[in-house]
Amino acid sequence: MKKIGVLDTTFARVGMGAFAVDELKKTGTGFRIERSTVPGIKDLPVAAKKLIEERGCDIVIALGMPGAQEIDKVCAHEASSGLIQVQLLTNKHIIEVFVHEDEAKTVKELAWVAERRAREHAVNAYDLLFRPERLAANAGKGLRQGFEDVGPVD
Amino acid sequence: MKKIGVLDTTFARVGMGAFAVDELKKTGTGFRIERSTVPGIKDLPVAAKKLIEERGCDIVIALGMPGAQEIDKVCAHEASSGLIQVQLLTNKHIIEVFVHEDEAKTVKELAWVAERRAREHAVNAYDLLFRPERLAANAGKGLRQGFEDVGPVD
Amino acid sequence: MKKIGVLDTTFARVGMGAFAVDELKKTGTGFRIERSTVPGIKDLPVAAKKLIEERGCDIVIALGMPGAQEIDKVCAHEASSGLIQVQLLTNKHIIEVFVHEDEAKTVKELAWVAERRAREHAVNAYDLLFRPERLAANAGKGLRQGFEDVGPVD
Amino acid sequence: MKKIGVLDTTFARVGMGAFAVDELKKTGTGFRIERSTVPGIKDLPVAAKKLIEERGCDIVIALGMPGAQEIDKVCAHEASSGLIQVQLLTNKHIIEVFVHEDEAKTVKELAWVAERRAREHAVNAYDLLFRPERLAANAGKGLRQGFEDVGPVD
Amino acid sequence: MKKIGVLDTTFARVGMGAFAVDELKKTGTGFRIERSTVPGIKDLPVAAKKLIEERGCDIVIALGMPGAQEIDKVCAHEASSGLIQVQLLTNKHIIEVFVHEDEAKTVKELAWVAERRAREHAVNAYDLLFRPERLAANAGKGLRQGFEDVGPVD
Repeated sequence: MKKIGVLDTTFARVGMGAFAVDELKKTGTGFRIERSTVPGIKDLPVAAKKLIEERGCDIVIALGMPGAQEIDKVCAHEASSGLIQVQLLTNKHIIEVFVHEDEAKTVKELAWVAERRAREHAVNAYDLLFRPERLAANAGKGLRQGFEDVGPVD
Repeated sequence: MKKIGVLDTTFARVGMGAFAVDELKKTGTGFRIERSTVPGIKDLPVAAKKLIEERGCDIVIALGMPGAQEIDKVCAHEASSGLIQVQLLTNKHIIEVFVHEDEAKTVKELAWVAERRAREHAVNAYDLLFRPERLAANAGKGLRQGFEDVGPVD
Repeated sequence: MKKIGVLDTTFARVGMGAFAVDELKKTGTGFRIERSTVPGIKDLPVAAKKLIEERGCDIVIALGMPGAQEIDKVCAHEASSGLIQVQLLTNKHIIEVFVHEDEAKTVKELAWVAERRAREHAVNAYDLLFRPERLAANAGKGLRQGFEDVGPVD
Repeated sequence: MKKIGVLDTTFARVGMGAFAVDELKKTGTGFRIERSTVPGIKDLPVAAKKLIEERGCDIVIALGMPGAQEIDKVCAHEASSGLIQVQLLTNKHIIEVFVHEDEAKTVKELAWVAERRAREHAVNAYDLLFRPERLAANAGKGLRQGFEDVGPVD
Repeated sequence: MKKIGVLDTTFARVGMGAFAVDELKKTGTGFRIERSTVPGIKDLPVAAKKLIEERGCDIVIALGMPGAQEIDKVCAHEASSGLIQVQLLTNKHIIEVFVHEDEAKTVKELAWVAERRAREHAVNAYDLLFRPERLAANAGKGLRQGFEDVGPVD
């Protein structure tokens, strides 16, 4: 039985973790979910590492919602760099699901893109763990999570 | 008995560490506090690591007040990156509490936000250690430390 | 028998990995290819590390297509930093083949430069593994991958 | 007997290391000084690590003078990040003393601030090693090195 | 017998490695040179590490010529950060010799500064290995490699 960590924040304005959990359950079986919530995105890296090393997760979905200010962009960069380091220290994938507050024009759109990105990346995490051939079949296809796929060039 | 490190700087213009200590004592019991003060925010990472590895802290609250210049933003970024690295090296959370001098319009507001952020993050540190279910219950709720919570989107 | 990892993404709009594989086969023998596909460029570092450590690759070609937005530039920077860290952790070369969407004026040109860069860097990977003297002979020659070589100054 | 490393560069336009040594000698006893000079600030991180690991330093003062160009700012950032990494690898403090050429309006002021910052940070290094209670007493006091202290908010 | 690694790229438009080798031979004896060439500057970090760990170099001179575009500046930053990490992992100095294409107004000047910087930094590498007292004597002297020394402030 595999374990998938689902990790989110109290800073985010949408319950992205819950959407990821819901989508995982719709997508397949053969895994258990470990949930964790931290204050902000900078707390995600060590929390992801603890999910992997202390709670046995085989992959982690790390969800966050950086603000729209310049300082928030820097925080997101630090968090992302940390999440990559955790992956290199553990040899496990962490799917980062960040929705920047200024990606959407309205709060309604923000909620929509956050849910959709959380769900689509939950499937990516599932695929990395159970169906890598599905990713291979989509190499170079211009897929996006949240907004529409742009598709391949040709 | 758990140990909580409270780490601040002589560069900051507000005694943020003292506020964190005061709030921790109001919040609960079951822990001892280890205090440390360094010159500036770039000195925080190794000091946090020493609090964890040499003085046995289970979590650290690292408080600092980056200046308003561009160079100060770079220093804050370097300090934050270092604090994340320490967390990955020790598997312990470090709650970073930075208040940028240009976040506030007046020195009075600066003092107000510094105290409030220090206090609210002290509670976050306490929750990570003793009440993770409290964080879980607030996932996606748009919480902020210092200024008002923005709240969830829906 | 050496192993060359070829790693690409579903985010890219061109099947760069397939071009790299094709070029490798035209270039020489003495190697087997290990293929892997991940969602986006930030997933490349750990996937490259797994190709090296879990699937025995002696070198990896990591192909991706960062978008044209500012946030995409930051992602590319994070991915690149991660790929360098993997190299330092494994003492194996990873040839990064990134084509930024805004490098080309049309989608046709984008497809053209992506294919050409993938092919030319596939040869670089082959040379690093089997013919380092070919690189030595071209030191300081102003070589480029994709667009035209600029040539040496003198 | 403790050892304090004093590390500077040939790039700097002021002999900052000499000022740090002079100030250390005025400040107290109980330590020996290990001197080292490298070409530029990017050479400081490994030199600091060697002072700690190969020459037994308990703390290092790393002094440099980044230029005024954008590229110099990037170099300073890289050097600072490296100095933080060394601290995390060794659990020893390194006091970074950088004076940016564009901090001062005249070369006379540049010389003045470089000397003063070197001296004041030499005392900080001494305090970290021998008198941490002196730093604790100044937490949140708005201290600066070089230019005037800004003081606490209240 | 010491070993000095000389590492350059096929991307550079000037054969900087050859100038470094020539200058080393003019400067002194007691060392052997190990040569290596990689495609671009991002390939330098692991190549430098391999020169040190697999070919026994005591110091490495890493030469490259970043382009003039914004993306090239980012690549240079990533390469520099990687080179610093290698130094921290090996406790060996790596002298980075980068000439940015936009440092010079003409290709003639570009060739001139590239040769001169390569030669002057070759001497720095030699000094770090054999004559550290020569660097110590020049602390704070405002030395530059390539363009003219700016000299000390006083």
